[in-house]
Amino acid sequence: MKLLEDRIVRDGVVKTEYVIKVGSFLNHQIDTALVDELGAEWARRFAGKPVDKIVTIESSGIALAAIAARHFGNCPVIVAKKSRSMNLDGDLYATQVESFTRGGVFDIVMERRLLKPGDHILIIDDFLATGSALTGLLDIAEQAGATVEGIGIAVEKGFQPGGESIRAHGYQLESLAIIEKMDPDTGAIEFR
Amino acid sequence: MKLLEDRIVRDGVVKTEYVIKVGSFLNHQIDTALVDELGAEWARRFAGKPVDKIVTIESSGIALAAIAARHFGNCPVIVAKKSRSMNLDGDLYATQVESFTRGGVFDIVMERRLLKPGDHILIIDDFLATGSALTGLLDIAEQAGATVEGIGIAVEKGFQPGGESIRAHGYQLESLAIIEKMDPDTGAIEFR
Repeated sequence: MKLLEDRIVRDGVVKTEYVIKVGSFLNHQIDTALVDELGAEWARRFAGKPVDKIVTIESSGIALAAIAARHFGNCPVIVAKKSRSMNLDGDLYATQVESFTRGGVFDIVMERRLLKPGDHILIIDDFLATGSALTGLLDIAEQAGATVEGIGIAVEKGFQPGGESIRAHGYQLESLAIIEKMDPDTGAIEFR
Repeated sequence: MKLLEDRIVRDGVVKTEYVIKVGSFLNHQIDTALVDELGAEWARRFAGKPVDKIVTIESSGIALAAIAARHFGNCPVIVAKKSRSMNLDGDLYATQVESFTRGGVFDIVMERRLLKPGDHILIIDDFLATGSALTGLLDIAEQAGATVEGIGIAVEKGFQPGGESIRAHGYQLESLAIIEKMDPDTGAIEFR
């Protein structure tokens, strides 16, 4: 999606070969007009899919999912939580994922009553790299017996294995910008 | 706001005299159509205020802020972070707040370049009880020299001191439902 690629080139900051910061428009600060366009684009790409819930994971996926929901009939958004919190009930789906940003392993949890067989979900997140968090959400969807209609990602790091692995499993994965290569010295970014 | 009060009565779960769970529509799962109505109501209550940025704190304020932004000219949303993260730059506003839900003290941080003198902000959050997190956001706004045009809260616990204290400081605080009393035995909820 050219609008997003152009914005990444303009305002993204390439820190290393593997790390790009998009905090000024996609997560620390959110350009809500831009994200609304991302939502409209996902709605075009998943047109005809009977999406009735959007699932994301805290915290940087939440704004994207919440704004995108308007383009999917104002469907509910479920936020999977990282690790147990005192405000969650006991009856939880849980799965363990590895964090490369934070280091270590953490739990992803979701209340069981929120996701059921018969639900048709779209998973939304800001980044896809190794696919660790996404694999956790897919595991929870499988535990729930929900149907995953698709996965919408803003920025995929195409040089990391997450995207290939998810596509190989047959999911419709729509990443709106796929970065093939980044050069921290020149700041150059190549898209797929 | 009757729409929200009715929904709290219908789907809120009173756990103790002090704790009500609204996770099925306001934070763990978000009823995006309802939250869009909350956004429209805040826009009515803050009509004429020159809001150009919405500020919230991760993670349960994010969806409300992101959806409400549509009613404030698709203005940017800034998400203050709890504690230092590897993905934040060094140049941060920071303040310490006490958490009654989690227990203990944590840092709220925000990149300095995102908030400046001349910014006119609306603070949005899902809950106001002791006002601890909110006081932290107000402290960051003051450090930045930004003007706080108002504070929009979904659910205020009127029997806790946060709301009174914030109003006494002269801020326009618009809580869309103010709970005066909750009875965990009967589930009864009284609103102001």
